[in-house]
Amino acid sequence: MATFRFTLEYDGTDFEGWQVQAAGHRTVQGCLEEALTRVLGVACHVIGAGRTDAGVHADGQLASASLETRLAAEELHRALNAVLPTDLAVVDLQPAPAGFHARRDAVSKLYRYAVWNGPTRSPRRERSFARVPRRLVLDAMRKAAAPLVGRHDFAAYQASGSSVTTTTRTVWRLDIEGRAGEEIYFWVEGNGFLRHMVRNLVGTLLEVGLGRRSVESPAEVLAGRDRSRAGATAPAPGLTLVEVATGAPSDSEFPDNPRT
Amino acid sequence: MATFRFTLEYDGTDFEGWQVQAAGHRTVQGCLEEALTRVLGVACHVIGAGRTDAGVHADGQLASASLETRLAAEELHRALNAVLPTDLAVVDLQPAPAGFHARRDAVSKLYRYAVWNGPTRSPRRERSFARVPRRLVLDAMRKAAAPLVGRHDFAAYQASGSSVTTTTRTVWRLDIEGRAGEEIYFWVEGNGFLRHMVRNLVGTLLEVGLGRRSVESPAEVLAGRDRSRAGATAPAPGLTLVEVATGAPSDSEFPDNPRT
Repeated sequence: MATFRFTLEYDGTDFEGWQVQAAGHRTVQGCLEEALTRVLGVACHVIGAGRTDAGVHADGQLASASLETRLAAEELHRALNAVLPTDLAVVDLQPAPAGFHARRDAVSKLYRYAVWNGPTRSPRRERSFARVPRRLVLDAMRKAAAPLVGRHDFAAYQASGSSVTTTTRTVWRLDIEGRAGEEIYFWVEGNGFLRHMVRNLVGTLLEVGLGRRSVESPAEVLAGRDRSRAGATAPAPGLTLVEVATGAPSDSEFPDNPRT
Repeated sequence: MATFRFTLEYDGTDFEGWQVQAAGHRTVQGCLEEALTRVLGVACHVIGAGRTDAGVHADGQLASASLETRLAAEELHRALNAVLPTDLAVVDLQPAPAGFHARRDAVSKLYRYAVWNGPTRSPRRERSFARVPRRLVLDAMRKAAAPLVGRHDFAAYQASGSSVTTTTRTVWRLDIEGRAGEEIYFWVEGNGFLRHMVRNLVGTLLEVGLGRRSVESPAEVLAGRDRSRAGATAPAPGLTLVEVATGAPSDSEFPDNPRT
């Protein structure tokens, strides 16, 4: 068995998320496993670092697999990209130490959320931006975001109905970048994220930017740990998993890494 | 009758170009005329500044129409965007003087051609970049592009089989921008363009960038006026009509404006 580390790029528009579901659902994991099976002739299982939802994109999703093959990483890489659909590609493929596990070994994830704040619909941004027609006040959103950075119980920002052991996560970056006037990017980086956490944080901050919620509110919601007080989940197409970093557990600065 | 000036954005992927064809062909002009007819209840005709080909995009295509309506531009704008498909939008709509004609009054067009020069396929750039896997030498392409700027007979760079009165055009900008290492943009601006001219210029310069053609060759091809010596037409998805400028004929610096 040989273990590999995959970096994947995909346009999430036509996928029903990362994770394999019942037959008839088109998922990223399913397409990748199917491509591996076509190339290697045996059933294959891949593990993704982040279980992206339907419509969410990736510039750098991380995945791992232990495979029965004598192919070199470079040969496997070329063969896979030849059979994968146009909306999914392996952008990097490297040999990895036995036991490498994309989800457990991920120590940091970076997400970008893109908002189109223009006065009219933008057809060319349709697949990868969420549109907010009314002008957002960036400064208010930045002030509201600052106290969310750090190690907190993010229970208020997880999808309702989730059940995980711990809802404590560390977010070390939550920047809001205004570019070219009408494109706004939220950069969110941390050691792990609860289900819908990035989209719920962004959705709540957007309400601050629209003046529908006070600058203090997102931190109050965090402290209250009550999902019903947070804002609406921002739409999936705006979200991209940009990068996943890994490290040996002993190297981690975050011994409480929840490894989600 | 009221005359209007439309600025249009579209993702050209699912359009068979700008110009209305036989029934059953989905074109930008056809979709816009259909939307106008739905809103106004009468047959409408629109004129576009550039007849973009199938798969070519626009950030700022210019169009004009004389319409039987008492709607203000703002009301018509909102109504149109509500009925247009998601891949086409009116980004600006203004009243225009009677007789305004998007094609005849255009004095300048700016095109951008996007190349993905990365080592692997890029699913998220699939719709709007042309991929060149081998590393392009930017400096050679820039040297080759310089003598193409100016007023020339561009017959060698028009689509074969074209018949226009004059093949002389003025190109006042042909810049090549390398960004983030692997994204390369060609910016081409001039008073008018022959059919496939931008894609033929880019296709020929790409062959220089790959070392398949000398730095001198594109200028020699221009001078020879022989289409068969130019490079392959670069693929449509890389091309975007960015902006169209208009001006009163008397204001024009270019009395020989061919008004294509």
